[in-house]
Amino acid sequence: MKASSVIGIVIGMITIALGAIMEGAPVMAVLNPSAMLIVLGGTFGAVMTGTSMGAIKNIPVLFKKSFSSEAPDLNARVTELVSYAEQARRDGLLALDEQLADIEDPYTRKGLQLVVDGTDPDLVADVLEAENDAMRKRHGAATQPFEKAGGYAPTMGIIGTVFGLIHVLSNLSKPETLGPSISAAFIATLLGIASANIVYLPIAARLKQLSQEELHFRGMTLEGILAIQAGDNPRVVAEKLMAYVPPGLRPTEEEAAAAADAAKAAKAEKAEAA
Amino acid sequence: MKASSVIGIVIGMITIALGAIMEGAPVMAVLNPSAMLIVLGGTFGAVMTGTSMGAIKNIPVLFKKSFSSEAPDLNARVTELVSYAEQARRDGLLALDEQLADIEDPYTRKGLQLVVDGTDPDLVADVLEAENDAMRKRHGAATQPFEKAGGYAPTMGIIGTVFGLIHVLSNLSKPETLGPSISAAFIATLLGIASANIVYLPIAARLKQLSQEELHFRGMTLEGILAIQAGDNPRVVAEKLMAYVPPGLRPTEEEAAAAADAAKAAKAEKAEAA
Amino acid sequence: MKASSVIGIVIGMITIALGAIMEGAPVMAVLNPSAMLIVLGGTFGAVMTGTSMGAIKNIPVLFKKSFSSEAPDLNARVTELVSYAEQARRDGLLALDEQLADIEDPYTRKGLQLVVDGTDPDLVADVLEAENDAMRKRHGAATQPFEKAGGYAPTMGIIGTVFGLIHVLSNLSKPETLGPSISAAFIATLLGIASANIVYLPIAARLKQLSQEELHFRGMTLEGILAIQAGDNPRVVAEKLMAYVPPGLRPTEEEAAAAADAAKAAKAEKAEAA
Amino acid sequence: MKASSVIGIVIGMITIALGAIMEGAPVMAVLNPSAMLIVLGGTFGAVMTGTSMGAIKNIPVLFKKSFSSEAPDLNARVTELVSYAEQARRDGLLALDEQLADIEDPYTRKGLQLVVDGTDPDLVADVLEAENDAMRKRHGAATQPFEKAGGYAPTMGIIGTVFGLIHVLSNLSKPETLGPSISAAFIATLLGIASANIVYLPIAARLKQLSQEELHFRGMTLEGILAIQAGDNPRVVAEKLMAYVPPGLRPTEEEAAAAADAAKAAKAEKAEAA
Amino acid sequence: MKASSVIGIVIGMITIALGAIMEGAPVMAVLNPSAMLIVLGGTFGAVMTGTSMGAIKNIPVLFKKSFSSEAPDLNARVTELVSYAEQARRDGLLALDEQLADIEDPYTRKGLQLVVDGTDPDLVADVLEAENDAMRKRHGAATQPFEKAGGYAPTMGIIGTVFGLIHVLSNLSKPETLGPSISAAFIATLLGIASANIVYLPIAARLKQLSQEELHFRGMTLEGILAIQAGDNPRVVAEKLMAYVPPGLRPTEEEAAAAADAAKAAKAEKAEAA
Repeated sequence: MKASSVIGIVIGMITIALGAIMEGAPVMAVLNPSAMLIVLGGTFGAVMTGTSMGAIKNIPVLFKKSFSSEAPDLNARVTELVSYAEQARRDGLLALDEQLADIEDPYTRKGLQLVVDGTDPDLVADVLEAENDAMRKRHGAATQPFEKAGGYAPTMGIIGTVFGLIHVLSNLSKPETLGPSISAAFIATLLGIASANIVYLPIAARLKQLSQEELHFRGMTLEGILAIQAGDNPRVVAEKLMAYVPPGLRPTEEEAAAAADAAKAAKAEKAEAA
Repeated sequence: MKASSVIGIVIGMITIALGAIMEGAPVMAVLNPSAMLIVLGGTFGAVMTGTSMGAIKNIPVLFKKSFSSEAPDLNARVTELVSYAEQARRDGLLALDEQLADIEDPYTRKGLQLVVDGTDPDLVADVLEAENDAMRKRHGAATQPFEKAGGYAPTMGIIGTVFGLIHVLSNLSKPETLGPSISAAFIATLLGIASANIVYLPIAARLKQLSQEELHFRGMTLEGILAIQAGDNPRVVAEKLMAYVPPGLRPTEEEAAAAADAAKAAKAEKAEAA
Repeated sequence: MKASSVIGIVIGMITIALGAIMEGAPVMAVLNPSAMLIVLGGTFGAVMTGTSMGAIKNIPVLFKKSFSSEAPDLNARVTELVSYAEQARRDGLLALDEQLADIEDPYTRKGLQLVVDGTDPDLVADVLEAENDAMRKRHGAATQPFEKAGGYAPTMGIIGTVFGLIHVLSNLSKPETLGPSISAAFIATLLGIASANIVYLPIAARLKQLSQEELHFRGMTLEGILAIQAGDNPRVVAEKLMAYVPPGLRPTEEEAAAAADAAKAAKAEKAEAA
Repeated sequence: MKASSVIGIVIGMITIALGAIMEGAPVMAVLNPSAMLIVLGGTFGAVMTGTSMGAIKNIPVLFKKSFSSEAPDLNARVTELVSYAEQARRDGLLALDEQLADIEDPYTRKGLQLVVDGTDPDLVADVLEAENDAMRKRHGAATQPFEKAGGYAPTMGIIGTVFGLIHVLSNLSKPETLGPSISAAFIATLLGIASANIVYLPIAARLKQLSQEELHFRGMTLEGILAIQAGDNPRVVAEKLMAYVPPGLRPTEEEAAAAADAAKAAKAEKAEAA
Repeated sequence: MKASSVIGIVIGMITIALGAIMEGAPVMAVLNPSAMLIVLGGTFGAVMTGTSMGAIKNIPVLFKKSFSSEAPDLNARVTELVSYAEQARRDGLLALDEQLADIEDPYTRKGLQLVVDGTDPDLVADVLEAENDAMRKRHGAATQPFEKAGGYAPTMGIIGTVFGLIHVLSNLSKPETLGPSISAAFIATLLGIASANIVYLPIAARLKQLSQEELHFRGMTLEGILAIQAGDNPRVVAEKLMAYVPPGLRPTEEEAAAAADAAKAAKAEKAEAA
């Protein structure tokens, strides 16, 4: 499920290039230095004006993230949280203390740490929700440069083309250069529209989607942590959390039982090894 | 009420094709391979970049869904819920336990199961609302590829056309090919606008509407389940639920009585058969 | 205040036609069959794809409604509600029972029926708000086909024009037909833009406004019913409701007194007649 | 601070006209009767279709309002409310009764009247918030014709231009009239864009801003009235209200003291005069 | 992190100018007086019509602010608030009184002043939230002229170009001036698009971002002040506030300890010096 963004950009570029070659258009003419300077430089400048240095430096990280992030595994998290609920129910909330060091996800660990410390439930919810809220804002700010670039690039293309046409119109006396000159002027428009619609806007959409998935994942985790703290029956915890899993991904009863057994076996093994 | 989307797409395509033929335009020229490659391939690539593999795989399912889904039958659900309310009032909430296996709709079944299990009303509402909320988000994510495609397709068409014009402008020396070449270049624009406005955007609108209908349906069901749990008078339950039914579809008093009788008869029959 | 939509459409069409005639343009050329087929048919198809059969069948009703609806009479409703408040204060809530059959507005009647039945105030508010909420959604769904048509029509016009230009460009060898052919191609654009901006979008705006007025009206009625149930002083009821009336329409003290007297006289007359 | 809208429109018109004259364009050609008929008439028709007669009649009033409204004086209102708080603290809430007749602002007077009448604080807040809410909706509805006109006008301009071009294209046989005819056709586009961007949209923005200022002003007044009713310390009342005043406009301590003294003096004088 | 806006505008202008020079376009032709008059004057007029004199006068201040504002230092504020929490815990809330005069940030000082005065926690939250809310509205109003200018400028450019074309079309008899005249007409479009996309819109985006950062900063401060008033454990205060700091900026444990030590040392030094 990993590489859909990379594949998407490659498909977009190849099909458009192939189509252009079939039309007989000189595809490589796109790599026009003046058009690239205007469109890429102008877009970068406009994006930079509208944001902070920190967000600019973050752009390569986000590019990479949009290409490689996997979907969070909701079922695994449900199984994990239900196993904590069982243990808490059996041995008390304090029994979770030993497990804390083994929890990989910092959000889950922070939440259960607060629970084990005997923090008030409302405060646990407040702290974890503040964390989610801050993440949501952070992601929103991080996605903005891509969205903005998607808006600026086509207009930068038009600026490049209008400059080109102004040049052409001032030299109408040499009609034999007219065609190629106008054609070169349009390269900028092409670059602006293509970069926006093949790269910037889709990447922005992808980052937004990743953010929503992570918020959904964390929302489920928060619900589970609060249910554990409230001492809910593990079956009720599972019922509550299952609402967050899309029906198509929900395990059948056998799968659920198998997953629970596997989780127990793994835990027993770990205990033995210790 | 089923096939309105199919009929709509067919009407759109036929009237436009007919109009084009009347104008004398060569309609089949639309099936230009290079234009199709650029517009369909570019749109697909951009959509794929901006979403996950899972959402991409889901597209054919949604296409089919938008063509065949029926409107939910609000009145039947009201009659059903009121009959549960009557039984619960008469024989206690536990009496609903026997019926659970016969309930087809998983949402209603899950809700009544929770009620029969004696779950706290707030918790019932929480679990069922979480389910609805997750469905709303899921539907939103599922509709996005169609909305995005509706946005990308026209710009991909412009990319195709600009490539075509660049090609034309580089070959101004053969004026006899000018007309057909420009004409071919515009096919891409045509394809982009038409695919967006006849297929992608209307399908997205349809999916959004289906989602709203389902959420409305579930909202009514949730209201009914909570009223049953609260032990409301069946007449009050009916009054509450009727607010969800559009006035034009509300049964007259006779129809309502007849529906209630039919439901009772069916139940009695089922009981006898058992 | 009735016919503003009809007058608006007529003014729009006549001034544009007059202007076109003054420019010397052949106005009747707009009735080009192929352009009409593409623009009207394509728009209808796209709208139909994106909605349900029920909403499609509803379109003529809404057309008519947008042409004839009158603004709700806020002052009359205030006077009416205050008179119920006086009676309830004087003779108890049950005294309203006799009046129920005479109340024309089903929403007011349903609300007062609930009050007379001794329903819990929160429940009264819930049921009536659910009714308003459902109406709001219903109106939103009903307005959508017009809004969507306003979005699709201009693009259908562009499709028609591009088809026309493709036809023209394939026949450049007959320059004498060039002008009229291009001119015919542009008719589609004209039809698309004009139908959207003179008919679809203004009608959608009008329906939205009617919906808001009705919701405002019902909101005031709900406030009044709850105040009556709470046993508020009629003067306080009037004060509360007057907030919903635009200052310019608020009666002066004399007018208010006269209206109250007239209402009482009418009631007395009715009582005598009975 | 009064006339910024008038000055703005005048600056816009003059600079554009000057620029056009410098380019050598015949500025007065803009007063083309057919273009004006299409653009102004079509826009008016479309706006009228989408709204009620009442809103149409309201347009000249709003035009005037957008030209002349002054910013509300937040500091004066703070001083006024704090002086009531002092009096209420010193002599009891009933002492405010004498002042009511002297309060110019009907909103403040209505609020304090309710307070003096001993109305429940929640009810005071409800009535005054309902008043604000209704004003917000009213203002929104009133601004809409201007916003809509800003959207319709450019498309009406395009309709006029396309009509003009159709006319031109049907008469290609007289090439010497070509230039002036096309030029005349474009006047409609010019009129549409200019009227929208110099008049309609800026006026809509101005009205929206005036509405927000008034709501902010009333929000502060409501906060103050509730604080007076709650018997808050005048210093706390001032602290609360000062949050509504932009830091740049907040009086220094000396200014605040001077303003309070002046207010007291004025009141004493009035008392003496009485 | 300071100058990203200045650098952005400079990069945008230089790359576009370089690209245009490479294309051979006469870059300095952009400084066309009539185009500048129409585009800059028209935009200024439209913006001025839609806002108040105060907002107009504020524009240069905001320009400067967008160029120079630094990101707020979240970690320093956390350390500061935690140190107040420690002192309050150790010596009581009143002990904070001495520190008040040393607090630079007026928002923190106002909040702690209220706490020290023994104001009710809800009231503290109300006053500080009202302050934030007013700031949010104020910032929104201040950003608007830039956003609006970004919307008006391109249309003013089109107005300039259409005027130019009208002029050209009225003088078709001198074909040798055709090219340069059309070229001059397009300068207005260029200026409109460029000023909007290189200056107005990016500046608006920057101001919006600065506003969000400041609101986030104040939100964290408010949370901390309320936690101090509630007598929260300093470790819990730190935990709560750390949720507002992006994970990448959160200090490691050693850094946090070092910062706390440094803060204590600084305070001790100050105490000694006193």
